[in-house]
Amino acid sequence: MLKKDERIDDLGLGGLQIIQDKKGFCFGVDAVLLANLAEIKKDAKVLDMGTGSGIIPLIIAGKRKPGEIHSMEIQPDVFDMCRRSILLNNLEGCIKPVNDSILQWERYYTKGYFDVITCNPPYKKRDTGLLNPEDKKRIARHETDADLEDFISVAAQLLNAKGKLFMIHRPQRLKEILRYGEKNKLSVKTLTFIHGRPGSKPTMVLIKAVKEGKEELLVEAPLYIYDHQGAYTKRIREIYGEIWTTRCEDE
Amino acid sequence: MLKKDERIDDLGLGGLQIIQDKKGFCFGVDAVLLANLAEIKKDAKVLDMGTGSGIIPLIIAGKRKPGEIHSMEIQPDVFDMCRRSILLNNLEGCIKPVNDSILQWERYYTKGYFDVITCNPPYKKRDTGLLNPEDKKRIARHETDADLEDFISVAAQLLNAKGKLFMIHRPQRLKEILRYGEKNKLSVKTLTFIHGRPGSKPTMVLIKAVKEGKEELLVEAPLYIYDHQGAYTKRIREIYGEIWTTRCEDE
Repeated sequence: MLKKDERIDDLGLGGLQIIQDKKGFCFGVDAVLLANLAEIKKDAKVLDMGTGSGIIPLIIAGKRKPGEIHSMEIQPDVFDMCRRSILLNNLEGCIKPVNDSILQWERYYTKGYFDVITCNPPYKKRDTGLLNPEDKKRIARHETDADLEDFISVAAQLLNAKGKLFMIHRPQRLKEILRYGEKNKLSVKTLTFIHGRPGSKPTMVLIKAVKEGKEELLVEAPLYIYDHQGAYTKRIREIYGEIWTTRCEDE
Repeated sequence: MLKKDERIDDLGLGGLQIIQDKKGFCFGVDAVLLANLAEIKKDAKVLDMGTGSGIIPLIIAGKRKPGEIHSMEIQPDVFDMCRRSILLNNLEGCIKPVNDSILQWERYYTKGYFDVITCNPPYKKRDTGLLNPEDKKRIARHETDADLEDFISVAAQLLNAKGKLFMIHRPQRLKEILRYGEKNKLSVKTLTFIHGRPGSKPTMVLIKAVKEGKEELLVEAPLYIYDHQGAYTKRIREIYGEIWTTRCEDE
């Protein structure tokens, strides 16, 4: 089940486990927040775009009652870890992974099929600072195949009317997200800025966008990872539950 | 000097005073924050659009070293209070007020004349909830003449290259501000969300936009008015200085 440099981590959600590559692809707080904060109604049809090793569908399968969870991941090695994690957890009936670019969505899904799409896309712009194209971790962090506009326009095609996109990204790219959302009739409705600790600038922003949604925007109260003493905040402890031990050292 | 229902308030900035209408137009924390947080270099040419009773130009005259401060206000009664406050403070040489709509800017100024524009526009959209068109306070809070797009497009005309617009508004209207900024080549560069107290949603957002500025956005650390105990935060006490006593009861 395990390849070189891989390990199995316990997600603590009724025994769920994930295979991770110690040197490559490990999930971060962003993916955990996204999987926990996305609003997913019972029996919803969910797609996770650019799913990596599968942390988001695994948490959703472990904590929610979705109808179906689909996932797309372009990188074969990373996809293979996700596929094996699904087998390891006997979730073949629940999570349906696809190893392809999100740009190929028409091969797998029909337009307007999904109620919810989650997406933790590469944060860095295409052609910025990609030093080693062989490095899986760097590829996951840079736009190499699909870029931000692609993620948003594909989500807009795949969501049904009033369907919701939940995306986590850097605040620096918020203007683009709003622009592409508008262009694709996927209206950004809620922003939650995520800060390392009180008094600091936000390092992430969680975006909720609604297909054919209305104009008005709600900015939520800030979400802090750490308190003034450097301990995890109550909110984060509630969200994380038992997942603490499984995070990679370098994330 | 004073008309019915007016009073003189001391701004505590080297003896500066402002005339306010007890039942109508009193400045709020938003105007004070805007006047203090706008970046104004020595000798800058500054315009305050929709200046009300003149709190923003008065604070700028009292605390900064601008070259010129101009102001535009459409409502004659409110403009008249501003005019008399300027006389009261012997600031005729520094603040140049105009009683007209910002849409008439070409009558008074040349294109690209200003280094900095400040604007605390009406927060509420045209045609929403305006109960009594005779009510000065309500007019100041609703878009009756110029609307948000007008304020931004006029600012874009009046700013020189790299000139800066500082605007305070409701977070609900942030998407429009970004959209109109983009349309008018006035790029929103910095957002500072202003919250009543820690853990609450922001009630205001301070926007810095730069004429022909670059794409990337910086979201600043949140600015809190009150601390957990309900006292003013250190930051607010530093900004306000001695202006406390002059605020109206209902603001």
